[in-house]
Amino acid sequence: MTATEDPIKITTKEQAQEFLDSFDTFLFDCDGVLWLGTHLLPNTKEILKMLEDAGKNLVFVTNNSTKSRKQYTKKFAGFGIEVSEEEIFTSGYAAAVYVRDFLNLQPGKDKIWVFGESGIGGELTEMGFEYLGGEDARLNEPFDASTSPFLVDGLDKDVKCVIAGLDTKVNYHRLAVSLQYLQQENVEFVGTNCDSTFPQKGHILPGAGSMVESLATSSGRKPAYCGKPNMNMLNSIVSAKKINKDRCCMVGDRLNTDMKFGADGKLGGTLLVLSGIETEERAFEISPDHPRPRYYIEKLGDIYELLKN
Amino acid sequence: MTATEDPIKITTKEQAQEFLDSFDTFLFDCDGVLWLGTHLLPNTKEILKMLEDAGKNLVFVTNNSTKSRKQYTKKFAGFGIEVSEEEIFTSGYAAAVYVRDFLNLQPGKDKIWVFGESGIGGELTEMGFEYLGGEDARLNEPFDASTSPFLVDGLDKDVKCVIAGLDTKVNYHRLAVSLQYLQQENVEFVGTNCDSTFPQKGHILPGAGSMVESLATSSGRKPAYCGKPNMNMLNSIVSAKKINKDRCCMVGDRLNTDMKFGADGKLGGTLLVLSGIETEERAFEISPDHPRPRYYIEKLGDIYELLKN
Repeated sequence: MTATEDPIKITTKEQAQEFLDSFDTFLFDCDGVLWLGTHLLPNTKEILKMLEDAGKNLVFVTNNSTKSRKQYTKKFAGFGIEVSEEEIFTSGYAAAVYVRDFLNLQPGKDKIWVFGESGIGGELTEMGFEYLGGEDARLNEPFDASTSPFLVDGLDKDVKCVIAGLDTKVNYHRLAVSLQYLQQENVEFVGTNCDSTFPQKGHILPGAGSMVESLATSSGRKPAYCGKPNMNMLNSIVSAKKINKDRCCMVGDRLNTDMKFGADGKLGGTLLVLSGIETEERAFEISPDHPRPRYYIEKLGDIYELLKN
Repeated sequence: MTATEDPIKITTKEQAQEFLDSFDTFLFDCDGVLWLGTHLLPNTKEILKMLEDAGKNLVFVTNNSTKSRKQYTKKFAGFGIEVSEEEIFTSGYAAAVYVRDFLNLQPGKDKIWVFGESGIGGELTEMGFEYLGGEDARLNEPFDASTSPFLVDGLDKDVKCVIAGLDTKVNYHRLAVSLQYLQQENVEFVGTNCDSTFPQKGHILPGAGSMVESLATSSGRKPAYCGKPNMNMLNSIVSAKKINKDRCCMVGDRLNTDMKFGADGKLGGTLLVLSGIETEERAFEISPDHPRPRYYIEKLGDIYELLKN
């Protein structure tokens, strides 16, 4: 679409049906679309079931790298939604896919240094990669270059990549050892996602991007980011799920990540829901910072409401 | 000077005398100029005494904000050099001067949130400012927005500035609370220095800039940096010491910080010493990244050697 086409609000049964018929695959952002924090949005279960019954492929896409896909299935189950690990894409998993399929590192041979929580390491382990760092409790100790178990015998020569993401256990030990690996020319630098903040329980807290950029500053290097809106995330999804982009729609609540992700990826469509942080007015804004959505709606469950009769 | 003027190597007694006669004030970088780590360079004590006896003003300028000026006098004393607190400028002190003299915050009324070590808070206290954060041990506890003693009763409304620098106790608690203050529009953002790394005992470790840039990313704000080569440092020195810039010479071992600091500040002269990280070849380089020095010499003590007879 071009900037001159106005976003279409889905308000009738016919529009809702035409919308569904246009796509085989729906990529869903989670928070702000399916739920708000710990509160499930109305008719979320019903619309997901309707889509499944209609034979659609559903992929849940989140930039949160602190949980693995397996841990995410439990979050869905807690809302009474049954979702398989294969339907979920976290930025941690996207980073692991990127390392394997695009950097061509070899599980069982090449190792990864992780700056981040268990959502990264968990995916690497499942993929057969050995990783160092991450949630290793020895990194919680105060840093001393002459005694750190990660430096005292030199760096591990098999480490070929640093993956960095949000780590609420960030400390000088983790930052300093990660930097030592990033000073090696043959070690790649991958960031899970560039989100500068992490909204949580009424506070805007530091996000993955703020930690990855700290390492980018100290190392003088630029990371390859894997989360939305970066195309590495979409390439990982396309690579893993063999989707047809023309028949794929991105559904999300943010213009500068979700809608940009769909537009940059030249997906068949984008749907903005207003149950998250954007407004109808913003959806019509013409800005160099973000694209306009093709479709928009108050909340995802409204599609179910329109179609159920 | 212009880029076409070749740097002058000081090799004769006459040149050395003319050099000294050209200036009333000398600004010295410390590490690489006076000492290398824990090793004092030859004739350092002698040249400093010679300059003092000649009635010159000496100012010692360091980007290290982890120690206060008082703590720095002990470092000098450890080398047998007697230096008063007034002769030392750390980036932490420069930040405090900047906050008082350029942001016009009022000691005894306005408060500062500190992300950094005792070299910042120490200077603020001495200046009469109340500060929060910094080395407060409660910040070593794991972060929980609902129980953090720095958030549970809301932010302190008297805090008008965040000063951030190198903190080897960096953690999510410190980053998250600092970010809450930076989200307040009326709170200023000052960085001690932008050095991305901190060379230490054979390792290149994360520097102040890598931490300040993390907060810059999460807050979407740009800090006012106070250390070399930023002019805020020079303005602070000029403001505190009332120096005549035409009769002032910057002495240092780095082109992109020390020499840039002197050139950008339009000081009367710059002297590069080759006892640190630069070479004679680099001194002659014409580059957009750094200026060439006006004078250069192998090591500072050589001036004493040339003049002593």
